[in-house]
Amino acid sequence: MYVKDLKWTPGISVKDLVNDFSSLGYQSTELAKAAEVFVKMKKNSAKIFLTFTSNMVTSGLRGFFAQLIKLRMADIIVTTVGGIEEDIMKASGEKFLVGKFSDDDVELHEKGINRIGNLLVKNESYMNFEDLINPVLKKLYEKQKMWTISEMLKEIGLTLNDENSILYQAARNDVPIFCPAITDGAFGFHLYLFQQKHSDFIVDVVKDFGNILFSTTHDDAKGVIALGGSISKHHAILCTLLNGGANYAVYMTTAHKTSGSMSGATTDEAKSWGKVNDESDVATVIGDVTIMFPLAMMKALEDLKVEGLI
Amino acid sequence: MYVKDLKWTPGISVKDLVNDFSSLGYQSTELAKAAEVFVKMKKNSAKIFLTFTSNMVTSGLRGFFAQLIKLRMADIIVTTVGGIEEDIMKASGEKFLVGKFSDDDVELHEKGINRIGNLLVKNESYMNFEDLINPVLKKLYEKQKMWTISEMLKEIGLTLNDENSILYQAARNDVPIFCPAITDGAFGFHLYLFQQKHSDFIVDVVKDFGNILFSTTHDDAKGVIALGGSISKHHAILCTLLNGGANYAVYMTTAHKTSGSMSGATTDEAKSWGKVNDESDVATVIGDVTIMFPLAMMKALEDLKVEGLI
Amino acid sequence: MYVKDLKWTPGISVKDLVNDFSSLGYQSTELAKAAEVFVKMKKNSAKIFLTFTSNMVTSGLRGFFAQLIKLRMADIIVTTVGGIEEDIMKASGEKFLVGKFSDDDVELHEKGINRIGNLLVKNESYMNFEDLINPVLKKLYEKQKMWTISEMLKEIGLTLNDENSILYQAARNDVPIFCPAITDGAFGFHLYLFQQKHSDFIVDVVKDFGNILFSTTHDDAKGVIALGGSISKHHAILCTLLNGGANYAVYMTTAHKTSGSMSGATTDEAKSWGKVNDESDVATVIGDVTIMFPLAMMKALEDLKVEGLI
Amino acid sequence: MYVKDLKWTPGISVKDLVNDFSSLGYQSTELAKAAEVFVKMKKNSAKIFLTFTSNMVTSGLRGFFAQLIKLRMADIIVTTVGGIEEDIMKASGEKFLVGKFSDDDVELHEKGINRIGNLLVKNESYMNFEDLINPVLKKLYEKQKMWTISEMLKEIGLTLNDENSILYQAARNDVPIFCPAITDGAFGFHLYLFQQKHSDFIVDVVKDFGNILFSTTHDDAKGVIALGGSISKHHAILCTLLNGGANYAVYMTTAHKTSGSMSGATTDEAKSWGKVNDESDVATVIGDVTIMFPLAMMKALEDLKVEGLI
Repeated sequence: MYVKDLKWTPGISVKDLVNDFSSLGYQSTELAKAAEVFVKMKKNSAKIFLTFTSNMVTSGLRGFFAQLIKLRMADIIVTTVGGIEEDIMKASGEKFLVGKFSDDDVELHEKGINRIGNLLVKNESYMNFEDLINPVLKKLYEKQKMWTISEMLKEIGLTLNDENSILYQAARNDVPIFCPAITDGAFGFHLYLFQQKHSDFIVDVVKDFGNILFSTTHDDAKGVIALGGSISKHHAILCTLLNGGANYAVYMTTAHKTSGSMSGATTDEAKSWGKVNDESDVATVIGDVTIMFPLAMMKALEDLKVEGLI
Repeated sequence: MYVKDLKWTPGISVKDLVNDFSSLGYQSTELAKAAEVFVKMKKNSAKIFLTFTSNMVTSGLRGFFAQLIKLRMADIIVTTVGGIEEDIMKASGEKFLVGKFSDDDVELHEKGINRIGNLLVKNESYMNFEDLINPVLKKLYEKQKMWTISEMLKEIGLTLNDENSILYQAARNDVPIFCPAITDGAFGFHLYLFQQKHSDFIVDVVKDFGNILFSTTHDDAKGVIALGGSISKHHAILCTLLNGGANYAVYMTTAHKTSGSMSGATTDEAKSWGKVNDESDVATVIGDVTIMFPLAMMKALEDLKVEGLI
Repeated sequence: MYVKDLKWTPGISVKDLVNDFSSLGYQSTELAKAAEVFVKMKKNSAKIFLTFTSNMVTSGLRGFFAQLIKLRMADIIVTTVGGIEEDIMKASGEKFLVGKFSDDDVELHEKGINRIGNLLVKNESYMNFEDLINPVLKKLYEKQKMWTISEMLKEIGLTLNDENSILYQAARNDVPIFCPAITDGAFGFHLYLFQQKHSDFIVDVVKDFGNILFSTTHDDAKGVIALGGSISKHHAILCTLLNGGANYAVYMTTAHKTSGSMSGATTDEAKSWGKVNDESDVATVIGDVTIMFPLAMMKALEDLKVEGLI
Repeated sequence: MYVKDLKWTPGISVKDLVNDFSSLGYQSTELAKAAEVFVKMKKNSAKIFLTFTSNMVTSGLRGFFAQLIKLRMADIIVTTVGGIEEDIMKASGEKFLVGKFSDDDVELHEKGINRIGNLLVKNESYMNFEDLINPVLKKLYEKQKMWTISEMLKEIGLTLNDENSILYQAARNDVPIFCPAITDGAFGFHLYLFQQKHSDFIVDVVKDFGNILFSTTHDDAKGVIALGGSISKHHAILCTLLNGGANYAVYMTTAHKTSGSMSGATTDEAKSWGKVNDESDVATVIGDVTIMFPLAMMKALEDLKVEGLI
């Protein structure tokens, strides 16, 4: 394909701009390719693993993730516990603020505000979370003593009343949410306090590994959309590998492969799984997910809509 | 401002998406801010310095830069010599190819192809450039023996016949192009060979420094749009500083400030120039320019169009 | 402090070079500062949380971590499960290879080799791990049905016979190892298979949260050394925060703060915890941990040795 | 080669640590390889092009560069004009300060201080530069009206009296310094002012391109050590390419190849030049040059000293 000169036309749509990206060069071309891989995944009825880190749920991507679950663009979710907490907080009316990367942390601390990049969360929101989660744990415990995370998150999702909530949409669309490190957050602390009072209350992470393992099969076509790195990305790759490897993979990250980290691992490796048919089934996009993901995914949604697939 | 949940609506425009970015978080918020600073620059009739590196001209951004010059969104251009060469090559019909970052360099070399990231340029294109530039130099030399770069580039621009060419549009819209390291490329080699035959042929870079210095004044409102780093970014900052500092600045780059390089320098420093009125006059966006710049600038163009300013 | 011209003197020691770094500039200065914070932590008898990601255990840093535990430079370890697995694999004689970042993944796959950056691990090593871990799980199960990770890892450590092993040294020096996502790896798969045969076998992650929570107190001076990002970094920060915040913090990472990720979070935030006395108690070093950490920590060890503190 | 567990031994030398790096993994292995390529360059009497950006001269690397010139580890220097200015400023007694990345820019501005990363330069130092450079230009002009940069820099170097100065050592060791964008700094402004008074004063950049072109030949073995990116890196690559390509190349940078920029270009391309014999003749190290370069180069110097080559 030849490089084409980009031109602005008044009223240009996201679809047309991403289309232009394919012949523009560098990461824009990779981004356009990612959109194509998204379309392929859906067309070929792949089981789609969507993974993201909690900072993306802090951002407004949260509502977009919920919409994608509703649109059946994700069959299995893997995330970190902060994302779970903040989705629940937002579903119960908490508001987060847009601040600045350069905000003074000492000053913010005095005001009882936490900073995540250029976003701000009040301590109060975390305290409200405490008031909110305890009655939920009680109800769960009354039902049974032993829980896997994914089952627990489904129950919580069913109690929420917010169309923009990831847990709400996942619960209603039978999309399991896995969180392999559930104790790594305020949620973990509350689970601990609850267990102190109810010593037979058990969170069974080993059983939940079986749940994600059997959420797909060797025979399924499988796709991984990994946004950011961390264990959420690793967990989806692990579980598709144990099922013979994914057929499609899109990784979006700001990390680079040069340090050997999972966050920076590219889709090159995916080619070694033996299920990827060719280069056009994988894409690695380097850049901030808040920009890269909406662009590529919205382009894919437009194309899938034309074909009547969403 | 509160973080807002992002939602896809079928047919969404670039304008609406970038609007949503302002309440999304992380770099998307910075990008939306960049769009606002672009609008401010134009509204307040700032002299706009647009700088970019040659790899962006290799990409399809070249046509967009030409369009921006035509739309009067840039008053002074600063770039590196590779960008000049490739603009001329494209204007004379050369085609560049979209390849892959992982293409085998030894194999490409055997085919006579050069790789710049995931873009490919044939050696042939460079040879055609040689055939093209020599008659031009002869004509220039017949006119006068001593040339500044910006005057030379204007003359060359007038000989081109391509609406998508940066030099073409710059020449026709009286936008000077400065290139402080003109010898750092094939162009330099041809200038050298020409000078060998015509020893009184002189390229006067010192005089051209005066030209860029007087391309604006202390009294002008001034804006810097620096895409990527290198001397093109530094040169624009230097020349606005010598004229009292810019009032507006947008830097877009993949580099980070942690190594102390010019490429990674942020607009924080701009606040120390004393002319920036407040935080809302500057923006630093981290990410690939092929994606970040079209998004932010097209959003600005849409807004300016509504106001009848372009 | 003035910038000083760096000079090579034949036979220069790591100690002297890092000393020179303090007046050299950019990340070298931050690195020299990190060394000073390490010394402060130890001198003030802080409880030191050392966190690292599994790719660092794949590398030769593994032996250095073991040595640091032996030297009492770490009181609490937090890591990801891959690091646990690979430490055990190495302790049982498995060898990893140094390869290249550009090795052909499809070719490696055919040879049964996995690539982690420029390091190579044979599939065979993972299979040997399986043979190794099953008898261990049987023995643990015979002792009791319910285990926390940290207790399990101590038991495993006691069975190993390798001075360079992290688990070996941790078990013998009463340094607990926490791994908040134990199922996110081959280990998780084997735990799952074991539980299939022994349904009353339970890994209690909630109880282990109590263990890390009570591994320190509000009254302790506390230090966090976070190498890389991921949940290991987050978990240590969370647990020190729940104990009133750390007094000292050094983060080393290749990630940047601009995407709002935990990996890229800097020690600026640590200043807001209220326990950090001044700027000299924290350091953020941007760069590859395999280089940055040995340099800074070896400098600290040299200084501590002079003072008789190790 | 197998991955080896790293161990601290009291009093460890830089030589031994970098030796250990070769079997440690990730960038540490690349760094050890860079040291080996430096040794190869020297052993095979390659013409060594050393390039660096001006921020490195702001740092204490300046004295190390001067020492390397004296030790004949560099045959041709390419840099940007800021580096030239600051070398001269330091040679005339100006002192730069170590500050912080987070210093308040508005506050610094009020104190008349410029910030370059975490280093600080007083405005006064720039003013003293003005007083210093004018008499020099006068003397040069009296000698002849037309100057190339490299000849001008040699003359200036001869007037300096500082063993730690790059220009001083280069002038005394017949190492030419090329600066393809001489007007992109305060120096350019002073050249301009001087030319205003002496209109026949000419800086001939085209002729200087011939000087660098003939600083080596097709027959010479050639090596490129490119620290950071920018035109200094590009210029050295261009000039070795026009002489048939380099045999050895080491690039050290914080930039990544994913944006297609020159700063992020890796040595993979060098393999396509046809002169690189094998993989062991090139190395790309990702990281801050203030740390990476002293480590790798000091290791090489130790090895070369043993062999009596320096």
